[in-house]
Parts: sequence; structure tokens; C-alpha cells
Amino acid sequence: MIVATSSSNGIAARISKILKVDMIRLEEKIFPDGEIYVRVPAKVNGDAVVVCSLNPPQERNFLLLSLSIEALVGAGAENVIAVVPYMSYARQDKRFLDGEAISIKVILKTIESVGASALLAVDVHSQSSLDEWLTIPHANILPSRAVAEFFRDRLRNPLVLAPDAGALWRARSVAELMGAPYDYIEKRRDRVTGEVIALPKDMDVEGRDVLIVDDIISTGGTLALAARSVKERGARGVYAACTHALLVRGALDRVISSGVDEVVATDTVPSPISKITVAPLIAEELAKLL
Amino acid sequence: MIVATSSSNGIAARISKILKVDMIRLEEKIFPDGEIYVRVPAKVNGDAVVVCSLNPPQERNFLLLSLSIEALVGAGAENVIAVVPYMSYARQDKRFLDGEAISIKVILKTIESVGASALLAVDVHSQSSLDEWLTIPHANILPSRAVAEFFRDRLRNPLVLAPDAGALWRARSVAELMGAPYDYIEKRRDRVTGEVIALPKDMDVEGRDVLIVDDIISTGGTLALAARSVKERGARGVYAACTHALLVRGALDRVISSGVDEVVATDTVPSPISKITVAPLIAEELAKLL
Repeated sequence: MIVATSSSNGIAARISKILKVDMIRLEEKIFPDGEIYVRVPAKVNGDAVVVCSLNPPQERNFLLLSLSIEALVGAGAENVIAVVPYMSYARQDKRFLDGEAISIKVILKTIESVGASALLAVDVHSQSSLDEWLTIPHANILPSRAVAEFFRDRLRNPLVLAPDAGALWRARSVAELMGAPYDYIEKRRDRVTGEVIALPKDMDVEGRDVLIVDDIISTGGTLALAARSVKERGARGVYAACTHALLVRGALDRVISSGVDEVVATDTVPSPISKITVAPLIAEELAKLL
Repeated sequence: MIVATSSSNGIAARISKILKVDMIRLEEKIFPDGEIYVRVPAKVNGDAVVVCSLNPPQERNFLLLSLSIEALVGAGAENVIAVVPYMSYARQDKRFLDGEAISIKVILKTIESVGASALLAVDVHSQSSLDEWLTIPHANILPSRAVAEFFRDRLRNPLVLAPDAGALWRARSVAELMGAPYDYIEKRRDRVTGEVIALPKDMDVEGRDVLIVDDIISTGGTLALAARSVKERGARGVYAACTHALLVRGALDRVISSGVDEVVATDTVPSPISKITVAPLIAEELAKLL
């Protein structure tokens, strides 16, 4: 049984169709004092798959997910598989400074302690977090295939770029599926104008369709800078794909006005650019578990 | 060491003064995407007491508390004692209907799983929840003494009332400290007018100062009805005390316009009527643990 929460973003229904497994919608209401109420409105036999993305408001959706898992355990589910399309709080994955909290540890330990039997997440910022903080089975699903399929017939002479060296593996995984070269972006100061520019470390962009691939577009600042820089150096078109479109502080206007021809994201976070669904990739992973 | 979060409501500083233990304020900020960041800005030796009330926004404060505990464990605290002046999500303490989540279980299991060594809470709606869902030491602190002290010299010929039979023990604990009689309120239909009224089951209110004692004022509907009813039956004054002043949907205007002469609450939830501090009671309990 697939269980849709109010933060499933349509993914539960898509998975249900692909796998031909029944879907129910969780009963949810808000008490006058603001507390979330959830109820599973059906008997549960066997396994339950609950879909709940931790997009903003992150803290409410985190509690919604936790309550849903608890309710499903109480309703008799044998296994509760938590599907978390966007895992928030994943960037604070270590103590960068003494005294900091490791946020992702709190999120993952809670999901496990309330009774989840397995966790599927999509493109978690820190890939090693799931291994580090979970003892239940888990998978981190990358949307590279879906991104590559979306852009394969749209781009001519493509070059896939990562926003920094640490994310090169993500650009590579998309580039290899498209048979395209890849590189990462380096920020530097133009020797003539003194301006900060952001260009591929080694590759030339002239006449190419550039595809910048990232996990999250937050304010979109780096992406906008890179788009301007590669257009000035003669790129034919600039395209951007991200997994999670958080789009804070007017990010979309910043990105579009920088000259990006098309910017798309997956449906892990609801947004005006969430054109690629991760449902088939999640369904495929679920099929291994069910 | 006492650690104040942004949801301590002044209680951390009061405890620090009473116990003569140093207090630090947790470093908190919000990332552009809305995520909470916390850091303990000092070395921690020995035990840490973190004060974080789960008043609205409950879900943000719940995560703030969880992150604070994790940060303190990481910062080297031997024991982290969580002080939760208002424990939200405590009313959904069992499956009233099949398929419901037991919210308080999720809250308590998280607090324990992120590393709290002990929990002190104030007037948790369901007294047995802490025993049921925690394996760490815990205490549920009742503010009866503080409430009785506040009203002792203010009321003449007092009668202490509970809003229903199930809460009679709370009224009794205040009444006994004041040397006053107590009863609980029953809703019934007036035989003459057909109106719904709410009056003490057995006691007569004529000429008495009535003190209605409850754990939470939410919408204030029951309290307003009872206030009107006892005034009509000749009560001299009507007073109300609650532990947690949630005050939703214009509750305070509803209560005051119903004829209540004074309504007070403790400082577990910030409100215009939070005149009684629970800090001395918490400090007393902490002194047993530290």
C-alpha cells in the first residue's frame, strides 16, 4: 500500500500507477492550536510505503512524516518504508565548527526511532549521511537518468558542468548518459576587467549548449554568475538542472535574468520548474524492496 | 551549565539565578531556505540543562530542542537534561480512533533518541505519557503551589473548580494548598431557559470567589461558559488559572468578556497573562538531579 501525505507532491500517486499498488491518502487536519493530526483511514496489511518530502515548511513536514510512520506502525503495517523525495537538513552533516548540531543525524535517528523499516531518499546532499546514521536499509536515488533523458534531444554539442569540484561526480553521471564531456566551474577574477567570473576549469564553451547540474538551487547566485560568464564566452545556450528547487529570495528571477535559457528541477520540491518526475526511479527502487 | 534556547521564555535565566549556575545562550540562526542552525558557543564540562518550551510554532521548537540536545551531546556534555516547560502534542496520547498517530510518543522517543539523559516537563496533559514512552529519568512538575500562592491573598471565601471530572485532581491540589473546597464543573441545560450552563456539580457559588483551574486555555470556550454561569448564580468574583496559555482564536477576549475578573497563566507559554513563573519549581526538581 502506498500512502500519500500532503507533502507527497504527486509522487505517491505516480508510484502507485507505475507499480499498480493501491494508494490511500493520509487523513490530516490541524487542531486550533496548530498541532498536526494524522490518521491512516484504512486497515493496513503487509507493507506500507509513505511518501513525504521534507520541503519547506521543513519542520512541519518532518513531524508529519514522523507521525505518519508512527500511525502506520500502529495500524499494523509489517514494514513501513519511508520515501523522502527531498531530505532537508542534510547540508549540516558534520560539526564544521565545535558545538554545532549535526542536523541530518537528528532527522535520520528520529525516522528510525519512530519505526521506519527502510528509507528511500533522493539525492541527499551528503551521500554518506544515510550510511552513517541509519541502521535500517536505505537508498539514495540519483536523478541523473531522468535529467539526461530530459535534455538529450534538447541540446546541441552539450557540455555538462558541475558548480564546483566537489560536485563533479554529479555532472559526470549525467554527461556519461548523454555521451557528452563534463567539467566543473571555477570562480576567478577576470585579469582585464577585475570582475568575478565563473567558467569551466578546462573546457571551452564556445558554440556549445552548456548544462549546469546541481543538487539544490537555493538563492541561485552561483548559477546566475556561471550563466553570465559562459554566455559572455560564447556559449550557444545555457541550461540548468537541479534536483531540489528550493528557490529562496527571488532565485528564479535571478536565474532567468542571468541568461539561462531553461532551468528545470525534479518534483521532489514543489516549484514552477519541477518538470522532471523522480517517481519512476523511486518505483524501480521500491520494486526491489516490495 | 544552563542553556537557554530562543524558546526558553526567560525560564533558563530564572533557573540560573536561583541555582547560581552559569547560563549560556544557544547560538541560533536561520538559513535562507528556512532551516534552523544551532551551535553551543562554549566548551561543556559535566551536565547541561537545556530549556526549550514546545509552544507554537511547535514543530520548529521541537526541532530546535532536538538539535540543541544533539549539539550538547556533541559538545561533550556528560548528561543533557531537557527542560520542556510546555510539552505540545501531549493531548494525542492514545489511538482514540484506529489508525491515529500517538503524537506524544513521537515527541518523547525523539527527545530520547537524540541523546537526552533526563526530561523535566511541566503539567503534561497526560500524566502517564512520560512513564509510558521514556526509559530515561523524568518528572512532570505541577504548578499547583505557585498557583495557590498567587491567589491565596487575593480571594475571599474561595471555591476551586475543575473544568471537568477528569481534571478534579488538579483543582484539588490547588484547593488543599489554599484550604479551600473544590468541585468540578458540569455542563447542563437550564430547565427554564433551555440555555446550556456550566456549574459546579455539588457546591453553591453564591458569595464566593470562584477559581477555575485548568492545564490549558485553548479557545477558552468552556471557561467563558463557566464564568458566565457562576456569575449568574451569584459568585462574588471569577478567577481563572491555567498552566499553559495557548489562547487561540481570540481566546483572551472571549474569556475576559465572559466576566472573568482575572485570568493568569504560568510562563511555560509566552502570553499577556503569563504572570506566574514555574522557574522555582523546576529549579527545585533540577537540584535533585544535579
